[in-house]
Amino acid sequence: MINNDNIIALATPSGAGAIAIIRISGKEAIQICQNYFRSISGKNLLKQETHTIHLGHIIKEDKELDEVLVSIFKDPHSYTGENVVEISCHGSIYIQQEIIQLFLRNGCRVANPGEFTLRAFLNGKLDLSQAEAVADLIASDNQASHQVAMQQMRGGFSNEIKALREELMNFASLIELELDFAEEDVEFANREQFANLIDRITKVLKHLIDSFAVGNVIKNGIPVAIIGEPNVGKSTLLNALLNEEKAIVSDIAGTTRDAIEDEITIGGIGFRFVDTAGIRETDDVIESIGIKKTFEKTSQAQVIMYLVDASEVKEIGEERINFEIKRIQNKFPDKPLLVVINKIDTVDEESIKSRFNYENLLFVSAKNNLGIEALKTQLLDFVNTGALKNNETIVTNSRHYDALLKALEEIQKVKEGMNTKLSGDLLAIDIRQALYHFGEITGEITSDDLLGNIFANFCIGK
Amino acid sequence: MINNDNIIALATPSGAGAIAIIRISGKEAIQICQNYFRSISGKNLLKQETHTIHLGHIIKEDKELDEVLVSIFKDPHSYTGENVVEISCHGSIYIQQEIIQLFLRNGCRVANPGEFTLRAFLNGKLDLSQAEAVADLIASDNQASHQVAMQQMRGGFSNEIKALREELMNFASLIELELDFAEEDVEFANREQFANLIDRITKVLKHLIDSFAVGNVIKNGIPVAIIGEPNVGKSTLLNALLNEEKAIVSDIAGTTRDAIEDEITIGGIGFRFVDTAGIRETDDVIESIGIKKTFEKTSQAQVIMYLVDASEVKEIGEERINFEIKRIQNKFPDKPLLVVINKIDTVDEESIKSRFNYENLLFVSAKNNLGIEALKTQLLDFVNTGALKNNETIVTNSRHYDALLKALEEIQKVKEGMNTKLSGDLLAIDIRQALYHFGEITGEITSDDLLGNIFANFCIGK
Repeated sequence: MINNDNIIALATPSGAGAIAIIRISGKEAIQICQNYFRSISGKNLLKQETHTIHLGHIIKEDKELDEVLVSIFKDPHSYTGENVVEISCHGSIYIQQEIIQLFLRNGCRVANPGEFTLRAFLNGKLDLSQAEAVADLIASDNQASHQVAMQQMRGGFSNEIKALREELMNFASLIELELDFAEEDVEFANREQFANLIDRITKVLKHLIDSFAVGNVIKNGIPVAIIGEPNVGKSTLLNALLNEEKAIVSDIAGTTRDAIEDEITIGGIGFRFVDTAGIRETDDVIESIGIKKTFEKTSQAQVIMYLVDASEVKEIGEERINFEIKRIQNKFPDKPLLVVINKIDTVDEESIKSRFNYENLLFVSAKNNLGIEALKTQLLDFVNTGALKNNETIVTNSRHYDALLKALEEIQKVKEGMNTKLSGDLLAIDIRQALYHFGEITGEITSDDLLGNIFANFCIGK
Repeated sequence: MINNDNIIALATPSGAGAIAIIRISGKEAIQICQNYFRSISGKNLLKQETHTIHLGHIIKEDKELDEVLVSIFKDPHSYTGENVVEISCHGSIYIQQEIIQLFLRNGCRVANPGEFTLRAFLNGKLDLSQAEAVADLIASDNQASHQVAMQQMRGGFSNEIKALREELMNFASLIELELDFAEEDVEFANREQFANLIDRITKVLKHLIDSFAVGNVIKNGIPVAIIGEPNVGKSTLLNALLNEEKAIVSDIAGTTRDAIEDEITIGGIGFRFVDTAGIRETDDVIESIGIKKTFEKTSQAQVIMYLVDASEVKEIGEERINFEIKRIQNKFPDKPLLVVINKIDTVDEESIKSRFNYENLLFVSAKNNLGIEALKTQLLDFVNTGALKNNETIVTNSRHYDALLKALEEIQKVKEGMNTKLSGDLLAIDIRQALYHFGEITGEITSDDLLGNIFANFCIGK
């Protein structure tokens, strides 16, 4: 699979901007660029040091195509580990295309998605889980997902796996060695130490597997189902939650962000608010498709928020609301339910407050920004596990999760085998299987298919 | 107006991509970056050479925000002429914002549109017309507009103006010197040489002013009014014209281009095809708003294309078509008219061809791609002036055009004044006026208002 032909791609977002970066990687990257580059000071790029920048023009058919800065990175001191040239040109789409086409006709081909990072992996600059973290990092859109991706890119996760894999591999070798001396009944592998290692591995694996639930939440945001009728002030509430973050974003001119009303970042965690129809009004058509959908959506959520208009409490009474709360709790006993009484400014707050005796009850006025901070804190409390706070390793990648589950399965087989005094040759097979799944995570074990799948999800230019 | 506080902006297009570039310029740019940068190899950015690149992390509150490459450019060897740092980070919008916000809170402010280029101008790295060419270059979307912008950025145009201005200024000084010795009736300024200079200036100015028509076409594309009924195959024809270019564009994955059906680049020149209603069917409602609009649109076009379905020739006869041609020519005598008979594949070509005796007549089959090359050549012939072919200086900027017109007016006053033996003091006033308009172009004469207007049209980050 290793290939050192010369690949080219636009590395910056497509579209017009002040500048654009075109990246070339491959054995002849610097030579190819030099062929169409005229330095202002007459320099030859091939003779320049790595990590230096050179001003000049890209020349096409004796005409200056653009004034550019060329950055040189020499094998192995580059992102891919190959010779790399980055051309910083004026950000017109026309110029970007002309430069890329010039090099496509003269020794380069278009890079596949993620091919720069694939090469970095193949050249040993990154392990596979670190390479995957690069895509996660680029996709990260809040503090938590960014933090987890950074951690994975630093290799904290895979270093742990690698260390355990090495220890396990030593034992596997010793046990396999015993097989050669089967008739002499020797034990090179200290069984007590081995049992100890297996316990440690089991603990680590379980911990990592458990972290996936948190990791998933971080990566995809926490789905919150809102049960509430149209007039209870849902969109005002979402706006109140969103407001602060929006203000920060719009501070930076030039970086616009599409407002997705129902996706809100609170305290660095993404929440996805899912609108569901109210359930009260549909009591008698419980079998209808509409109500089915409400329950479907709600069952996929991790948190349920039941939003009530304070004036309703007065009109229909707290008994009725308590009844609804019970109904929701009965239907979804495992999901945290947050009851939010909105428009508290329109009624006598104290009189309403005293009429409820439910723990997760919040009184807010979305319009007047009352109680919004408490609501945020409450939402965060549902997800703020120790792992997130303590900067622990968190698994976010389902491929890693699968491999960890499989590794755990094999490790448990090994443990059982040791307990039942399984013969060394059978034990060795299970250990090798566990080692295989460890290797899948860090990329010691790969296949072209696996790599193809992983890097196909990258953007071009990375 | 000179200001060397520290400005920051995203220099690459907004949105997510493999990488993004954040640019900081100002006296403390390198120091500010160093405060939040931890080099992989322990380097201090302040001690590094200009034009070098350094790998490390941006640190926020003791956490690694991102792994980045920092490029250093030291005053005066940078784009702005100040200390400049370019941070190449992972292209997630979250990371871009976090890094920009970090520096906004610590010594930088958001750059105004074009402020980097404004500083380059104020620091003498570019003259004003070159600075304006930067924006044109980024906006250029075809070969011709790109070529003209590159030429202007190289300074060909302003160098010519500057040289003439200098000569004129020498004469102005001599004539003003004569005023001090008015009673002695001396002539320091050789009147013959001066007349000669005025003639040369007049010639250059007229040439540049004339080039603006071409420049305008290049910058904005050539409007072509298509007169033709809906079923004559207009969109097939536009597609046939567009096809080739489209294929080139889609070669480069990752750079998508919105297909604007009616804007087509042919041979590096933009053509804007403007659809007009057929004129034949509206003979009897000539006063209607619809037909008025057709004539309005057509009168704004630079070329008229009359598109006819070949089968119509058979049905309604060539006399009728010739009559229409005459009608269009009478209405728009100054505009080149191209008559295109489409769907020539559906009829006996030779018999139809022989029935017309009009010069600008083309037979095509848009569907079968017949005659399309000839049509392109014909369209290009309408605009291929010598100036464009011979890489001459072309004025595209209406501000320059205005200043050139005003300068010419003053120069003509000077000439008249010399012919009528105008007194030196009055002559000097007209010369100073001409000098003023020359200076406006290159930026020797500026005002904050003028600069404000020019750079407000730039994108942020340039």
